[in-house]
Amino acid sequence: MAASLAIAATAFAAPSRPAVGAERAGVQMSGVARNANFGKLQAGYLFPEIGRRRSAYLAANPDANIISLGIGDTTQPVPSHILSGLVAGASKLGTKEGYSGYGAEQGMGPLREKIASALYDGKVDAAEVFVSDGSKCDIGRLQMMFGSGVTSAVQDPSYPVYVDTSVIMGQTAEMDATSKQYGNIVYMPCSPSNNFFPDLSSTPRADVVYFCSPNNPTGAAASREQLQQLVDWCNKQGSILVFDAAYAPFIRSADVNSFSKYAGFTGVRLGWTVVPKELVWADGSSVAADFNRIMCTVFNGDSSVLRAGFVLIDYYMENAAMLRQTMLDIGLKVHGGTDAPYVFVDLEGKPSWDMFSKILEEAQVVTIPGAGFGPGGEGFLRLSAFAPREACEEACTRLRTAMKPDAVPAA
Amino acid sequence: MAASLAIAATAFAAPSRPAVGAERAGVQMSGVARNANFGKLQAGYLFPEIGRRRSAYLAANPDANIISLGIGDTTQPVPSHILSGLVAGASKLGTKEGYSGYGAEQGMGPLREKIASALYDGKVDAAEVFVSDGSKCDIGRLQMMFGSGVTSAVQDPSYPVYVDTSVIMGQTAEMDATSKQYGNIVYMPCSPSNNFFPDLSSTPRADVVYFCSPNNPTGAAASREQLQQLVDWCNKQGSILVFDAAYAPFIRSADVNSFSKYAGFTGVRLGWTVVPKELVWADGSSVAADFNRIMCTVFNGDSSVLRAGFVLIDYYMENAAMLRQTMLDIGLKVHGGTDAPYVFVDLEGKPSWDMFSKILEEAQVVTIPGAGFGPGGEGFLRLSAFAPREACEEACTRLRTAMKPDAVPAA
Repeated sequence: MAASLAIAATAFAAPSRPAVGAERAGVQMSGVARNANFGKLQAGYLFPEIGRRRSAYLAANPDANIISLGIGDTTQPVPSHILSGLVAGASKLGTKEGYSGYGAEQGMGPLREKIASALYDGKVDAAEVFVSDGSKCDIGRLQMMFGSGVTSAVQDPSYPVYVDTSVIMGQTAEMDATSKQYGNIVYMPCSPSNNFFPDLSSTPRADVVYFCSPNNPTGAAASREQLQQLVDWCNKQGSILVFDAAYAPFIRSADVNSFSKYAGFTGVRLGWTVVPKELVWADGSSVAADFNRIMCTVFNGDSSVLRAGFVLIDYYMENAAMLRQTMLDIGLKVHGGTDAPYVFVDLEGKPSWDMFSKILEEAQVVTIPGAGFGPGGEGFLRLSAFAPREACEEACTRLRTAMKPDAVPAA
Repeated sequence: MAASLAIAATAFAAPSRPAVGAERAGVQMSGVARNANFGKLQAGYLFPEIGRRRSAYLAANPDANIISLGIGDTTQPVPSHILSGLVAGASKLGTKEGYSGYGAEQGMGPLREKIASALYDGKVDAAEVFVSDGSKCDIGRLQMMFGSGVTSAVQDPSYPVYVDTSVIMGQTAEMDATSKQYGNIVYMPCSPSNNFFPDLSSTPRADVVYFCSPNNPTGAAASREQLQQLVDWCNKQGSILVFDAAYAPFIRSADVNSFSKYAGFTGVRLGWTVVPKELVWADGSSVAADFNRIMCTVFNGDSSVLRAGFVLIDYYMENAAMLRQTMLDIGLKVHGGTDAPYVFVDLEGKPSWDMFSKILEEAQVVTIPGAGFGPGGEGFLRLSAFAPREACEEACTRLRTAMKPDAVPAA
């Protein structure tokens, strides 16, 4: 069903906007206390904040020709062999035989079977695969399942969704103004000094461990040996490991584990989560059963037009190599970009928001400051490889000027 | 990005399934306490439970020719003028100019404008429209925003998502075994005796009031006057009204408010939520800002292929009229079916799960027992109008036999 919600009655039934109970003009006061956890969240979500700064710059400089190496959004059209599958999928909805309504909330059986057999070599059962609209959305649903009582550990820096949802669910204390860390989160520092893999022997236990490899934003991919260490450590202390493999198809190194070759497109929402049937809570009850309950309760199944999976990786990895080489030529240290579509540039201690602003103003290139991914990201800049080729080339030319060593702002 | 998550390490890195810390074979014990709120949830989610009973019957009776009037899933193919839009949408992704990646988390600007102007006569701003994958999913995100500290009021009976998400978020106490009501939820009884509209003068205050009209499962549509009462009551006590208008396009009565003529298809996920910019929490901060933060944090935007809206209502409403007439012919009292795609049949006090089983066994027709929508639904049966025409006709023929008065099980 195409469905609509109107929150607060004014949008629907009231002939004009009343301000009953309002204390100032244009405001409709409710007597509902704000969820205190929202007060703990810092500023805006990272990516919209980048968008605001870009828009402000454009408003002041309307003729600027901006190139974005910022948010990791893909830009290349879908290849024709995939496209024909998408069009056929859409066309089928016009026939009586081909029309399908709601999928099962867990995904259609044949797709679950295919993911289990083709991408996991049969090591997981189809029943353990939950098809969804992507890992960011699944993280939100997992957090609803975990509730407020668990402790979480995250790589620092990492993609904001893990920490922000922990804050929203009430698992954390306030952010400490000095360390920029939320209380009751275990931060696992990942930096060049530990080759972006945390020192587990000194890491406190957490109930839930979020680990993203290849990592966003650092581009670091853990080796098979490192992943085995991580698994053993989680098993030993009874932690649940949430392994975010969103960028697995970009892996090119031989000693790094990879599923297989597959990929998607940011606008075509399709993902999945595997929950092993053996995994149980401390009381012996099934984690997969609770996750299934969440999916049934707040999800309707993936979109029926979009059941497909495909490849468009090499193009972006060539962009990554170009960005990486440009930074090396400038004389900067870089990480990532070989097994991941992100290049993480070491600013040698200089503030990342300052460099972001300098590059936006002098080169009209949008990047992402590392500080946006946690305190451990300060002093780094993330470049996304998802631009069109010509834009990526032009960005490299501009960055060679704006980022040359004597142009780097003082620390 | 097509994204995958593996929860617990065994699915990814471990060569075989270890059971480190396991206390019984085939189980991987974690040291993580289960979210206590999950223990409060009763049995399974309603619709999968219906599916299980149907499958069990089919397993025992493999030759049964089952007709479903159960879950409200649509069955008719998408009309050609809509289909051409969908195919064109998919095809565009194959061109450089037409490809789009992530939409804004709030939806694409032009679609938000169109919804505001065409469906709300400009009474809402585009900035107040949040496009999503449907109201069930949005309810989950709204509940993450509300948190554990609010009280909620629901129509009884009502679609399970409101109560279940309140339980999951920790807003409620345990279910009382006698009343079948969760503690700390305000149940608003809706029955033939009050024409399915609650007596607001005797209803306790709640922070959040969920109201679905036309209602699922009762099919009751509130009049304009009733909705104005509801709005005034919410304003007076400072409640936030979450108005679920999923079935608004089915409204046919003149004195019932309606947006406009539009509809969708269950497999093509598209919906939206309107949050008035004037609405603030008790501390004066903006509700829309917090909802925006939730959407940015745990949602990636609607699917880029599916941005369209359309009509396929009359066909289903003719089914509803047929089901309604059949029940009247049998001599049963019926509600709904005139402004909503659901017919709510009065079983005159007889247990709804008993009637569900009797109809499944004797007529091989799947229905939904009213008790599944809350204690107030006991003694009623919901029939969905979303079957194909011929199946609906055949179901009516069978129901005339199975439900004739002397066939109704004793109370």
